[in-house]
Amino acid sequence: MSSITTQNNHIVLTESPDEKGLIHRITGVLFEHGLNIEDQAQYVDPSHDKFFMRTVASGALDEGSLSSALRDVLPASSEIRIASGEKKKIVICATRAAHCLGDLLIRHEYGGLHAEIQCVISNHETLRSLVERFNIPFHYISHKDLSREQHEEQLVECISSVSPDYIVLARYMRVLTSDFVEKFPQQIVNIHHSFLPAFIGARPYRQALERGVKVIGATAHFVTSELDGGPIISQDVIPVDHSKSEEDMIAAGQNVEVSVLAEALRLVFHDRVFVDHNRTIVFS
Amino acid sequence: MSSITTQNNHIVLTESPDEKGLIHRITGVLFEHGLNIEDQAQYVDPSHDKFFMRTVASGALDEGSLSSALRDVLPASSEIRIASGEKKKIVICATRAAHCLGDLLIRHEYGGLHAEIQCVISNHETLRSLVERFNIPFHYISHKDLSREQHEEQLVECISSVSPDYIVLARYMRVLTSDFVEKFPQQIVNIHHSFLPAFIGARPYRQALERGVKVIGATAHFVTSELDGGPIISQDVIPVDHSKSEEDMIAAGQNVEVSVLAEALRLVFHDRVFVDHNRTIVFS
Amino acid sequence: MSSITTQNNHIVLTESPDEKGLIHRITGVLFEHGLNIEDQAQYVDPSHDKFFMRTVASGALDEGSLSSALRDVLPASSEIRIASGEKKKIVICATRAAHCLGDLLIRHEYGGLHAEIQCVISNHETLRSLVERFNIPFHYISHKDLSREQHEEQLVECISSVSPDYIVLARYMRVLTSDFVEKFPQQIVNIHHSFLPAFIGARPYRQALERGVKVIGATAHFVTSELDGGPIISQDVIPVDHSKSEEDMIAAGQNVEVSVLAEALRLVFHDRVFVDHNRTIVFS
Amino acid sequence: MSSITTQNNHIVLTESPDEKGLIHRITGVLFEHGLNIEDQAQYVDPSHDKFFMRTVASGALDEGSLSSALRDVLPASSEIRIASGEKKKIVICATRAAHCLGDLLIRHEYGGLHAEIQCVISNHETLRSLVERFNIPFHYISHKDLSREQHEEQLVECISSVSPDYIVLARYMRVLTSDFVEKFPQQIVNIHHSFLPAFIGARPYRQALERGVKVIGATAHFVTSELDGGPIISQDVIPVDHSKSEEDMIAAGQNVEVSVLAEALRLVFHDRVFVDHNRTIVFS
Repeated sequence: MSSITTQNNHIVLTESPDEKGLIHRITGVLFEHGLNIEDQAQYVDPSHDKFFMRTVASGALDEGSLSSALRDVLPASSEIRIASGEKKKIVICATRAAHCLGDLLIRHEYGGLHAEIQCVISNHETLRSLVERFNIPFHYISHKDLSREQHEEQLVECISSVSPDYIVLARYMRVLTSDFVEKFPQQIVNIHHSFLPAFIGARPYRQALERGVKVIGATAHFVTSELDGGPIISQDVIPVDHSKSEEDMIAAGQNVEVSVLAEALRLVFHDRVFVDHNRTIVFS
Repeated sequence: MSSITTQNNHIVLTESPDEKGLIHRITGVLFEHGLNIEDQAQYVDPSHDKFFMRTVASGALDEGSLSSALRDVLPASSEIRIASGEKKKIVICATRAAHCLGDLLIRHEYGGLHAEIQCVISNHETLRSLVERFNIPFHYISHKDLSREQHEEQLVECISSVSPDYIVLARYMRVLTSDFVEKFPQQIVNIHHSFLPAFIGARPYRQALERGVKVIGATAHFVTSELDGGPIISQDVIPVDHSKSEEDMIAAGQNVEVSVLAEALRLVFHDRVFVDHNRTIVFS
Repeated sequence: MSSITTQNNHIVLTESPDEKGLIHRITGVLFEHGLNIEDQAQYVDPSHDKFFMRTVASGALDEGSLSSALRDVLPASSEIRIASGEKKKIVICATRAAHCLGDLLIRHEYGGLHAEIQCVISNHETLRSLVERFNIPFHYISHKDLSREQHEEQLVECISSVSPDYIVLARYMRVLTSDFVEKFPQQIVNIHHSFLPAFIGARPYRQALERGVKVIGATAHFVTSELDGGPIISQDVIPVDHSKSEEDMIAAGQNVEVSVLAEALRLVFHDRVFVDHNRTIVFS
Repeated sequence: MSSITTQNNHIVLTESPDEKGLIHRITGVLFEHGLNIEDQAQYVDPSHDKFFMRTVASGALDEGSLSSALRDVLPASSEIRIASGEKKKIVICATRAAHCLGDLLIRHEYGGLHAEIQCVISNHETLRSLVERFNIPFHYISHKDLSREQHEEQLVECISSVSPDYIVLARYMRVLTSDFVEKFPQQIVNIHHSFLPAFIGARPYRQALERGVKVIGATAHFVTSELDGGPIISQDVIPVDHSKSEEDMIAAGQNVEVSVLAEALRLVFHDRVFVDHNRTIVFS
């Protein structure tokens, strides 16, 4: 039982109405299929009587048979996913800031990202050189002279052509429409440069300076149609004092943005995150 | 030069419009008065061109002469305070929660508070037993059947009778009127159980649970007429996850409330905090 | 499923050699006994092929029947404990420092400790007044003119008379002999004022100052016969800088000692801690 | 007074025996030279009666005249440095791990490093591709078939040819001889992957796992002839629990190594660090 999912490991994820005996039933199915449980975690949301479980199991797998057997023992409205533990396919959107994107490119090349970056999309040319030197396709999709809808149409076309599991907004400075967001439910991860729900919207470090806070932070969350309002995956803060200018905060804040985004993606890409209404269940 | 202010130390605090040569002039006056600088810190607020300086100096002191000499070298509108470094006189207001008050009572008795508690005032009887066993006067001032103004009148009378330097709201669960607050400018310190400006007002842990945040926190601030909007002195957070109920958050949050309030009071009682518009300058 | 264990909840703790199917077997027994699983966590130590599981189950319980049924399905050398979730009986040992003891007394009185303090034992009279005002028996057992063995004999007698579940060393400044420690295996919790394994032994803040570290910390651990070498339950640090004297570090460090000890006791008293060789398994 | 040093700013650094009036004298010289103090910090080490001061001053500068005037007012054995605030020249040594080096390359290219990387030296070819795509010279200096002295001779030759201000060991996995270290006093910054003084030497995460600590960390320090014993510049920790394998710790630890090294270099490259015997004075 280790937190590392090797290729022989399968990740069984179930969401269902809560009932007595669910753990026993699920582990029974796994046992009958000759699987060994390497790691397991579960949670019942008491507000919605909903049961969530994540099991890492090792052994030879007949996925169809397992899935069908699980369905037999679980309540009718349950959701069952069996993940292979393989790297996710992702698209990254960025604008001009290099810190989050650069960190992801380094992790990607040296094995720390657990994802395959299909391409990077940007509404500026600034980051092309950085991306291309890592042999990742870079697509410049300008928003100039386009309506928001026209611009997003081009984005959707580009994204859909690679069918990613997730879209990562690595300091992508465009607000997305509900139409766009609803095309990729629970698939878009954004890094916001404040500890939400404080300082929603533009220039959060300026807002932080004006409010005179003694900590600044960053929040990674799934994107929903509510601005900076989606389910939070991870967040963290660092201390600041009166002597920090907005520029100082921006520089210091970049470090926490990088680490919070990396942590959120580690959790999401290893199938450790469930969305439960507007909260996340994170089996870390 | 140590951060401990012994009784032979004097704390010289100045606020003035910024000008070239201020540090040289002030240190010159101190030198001429035979004082040795043990610790010094200064800051210029670039938005308001205002200079703040805190100097700890040791040696025999003629306060009137020093004050007059400083006034001679500083711009006309400057403020000058010379603090003795002695313990502050304080009043604590609390309601029913014992964690912050209990911590302050223990620190008070064992030398960690740098203040003399004159009395504890509460709108409930709950905490009388705790307070009185530490030989501190406890005043029960109920708000029952009183208008807010009538209740605060009794508060003011009780507080004024001991002329405290500071009033500490140690989880005092009443909103104070502007009239009350303006009687004690920069003298009331409150602990709020969230990382402000998130979760202003009532039941912040409930708000935190509903928003699904991954950190909770506490904020100590000077009280102004804007609810939870005064200058922040200190704040901190602790991680939480989906499994925490509101009760769990309340229990875990108490620990951070205690430590954030204690830190804020350490800073305030050692004259390390200036108020600069709606922010604090903290020479920690 | 909440982290709070009500009186209707039972905590089932098992340690056994790892085998396929253990979770299924244990949850099966619980299901057959009509118990509902409120919370569950498990871990396999891969170095020792040992399986640890903690289950919180609700429902009417026949403890003898449950225990016997669990024994039937588990490997022969397994250990099974069924805890009631009731408060633990504890003895606190302290010397002259009031900060940890004071915090425990406040928590004890106001419901935050999940333990019943049977008495406080000290080798000095200093803390008697504090303890007695909380209506807790205080036993002064001086070490003066006694050999270490003679002194500990008196300690053991006093402790044994109340048969505590745990002994908490709240800054108790005496090194205990192996003989003493072995009488209370996995029952003695100590708070050490450094982030172990750094700064073992006396005056850790002096050691920290001399090494010039930028963080100081505290460690709560079970006591074994190796000085400051027992299984660590919790630890934390706070930042320091060059300006801090040893006295400053002592004052700042007390806050982290208090919070680390309180967290360790929360975990231990809610049966969330297993000892696995020289490490702890903490189901937090 | 801001923490950003623009090109019009000069950084005046003095170390001297402590005497009354030093701040007044130094600020007097600055005033006479028409300089405006933008930021200032000072400290007296009470163990060695030594005074350290860092002033950021703006205005037109005659460096020779200022230096000479400062010498006139300071004690004979004082050290005076006037830094331009320009980027430092550095050499990075690395072995095979890409995380710290990659982070430095990204910061270098996008303005966050405050240094010019002259070249990267490695005893392996692994990182060549990464370095060269950022247009930085990469020098492979193998230690194969060479004595430690022979290998270091080649290192010294390569380093000396670019006369760097600092040498950064970004997870360089070779122990350096005293001879080497003494050639570059207070110029070599190393990142060690533990919270020193715990876990000196090889495989600190393995050591951490075996000791069962609940935090792991990283330490950036100046290199001296004592292994992992030089003055500490910055350090930080992150929490871990029993479920983390050595591989998990290595992965999680990389994030804190990256951030601690970046913070130390920010401080050093902005002339915010003095070395005072075996400790650092950090004016952050």
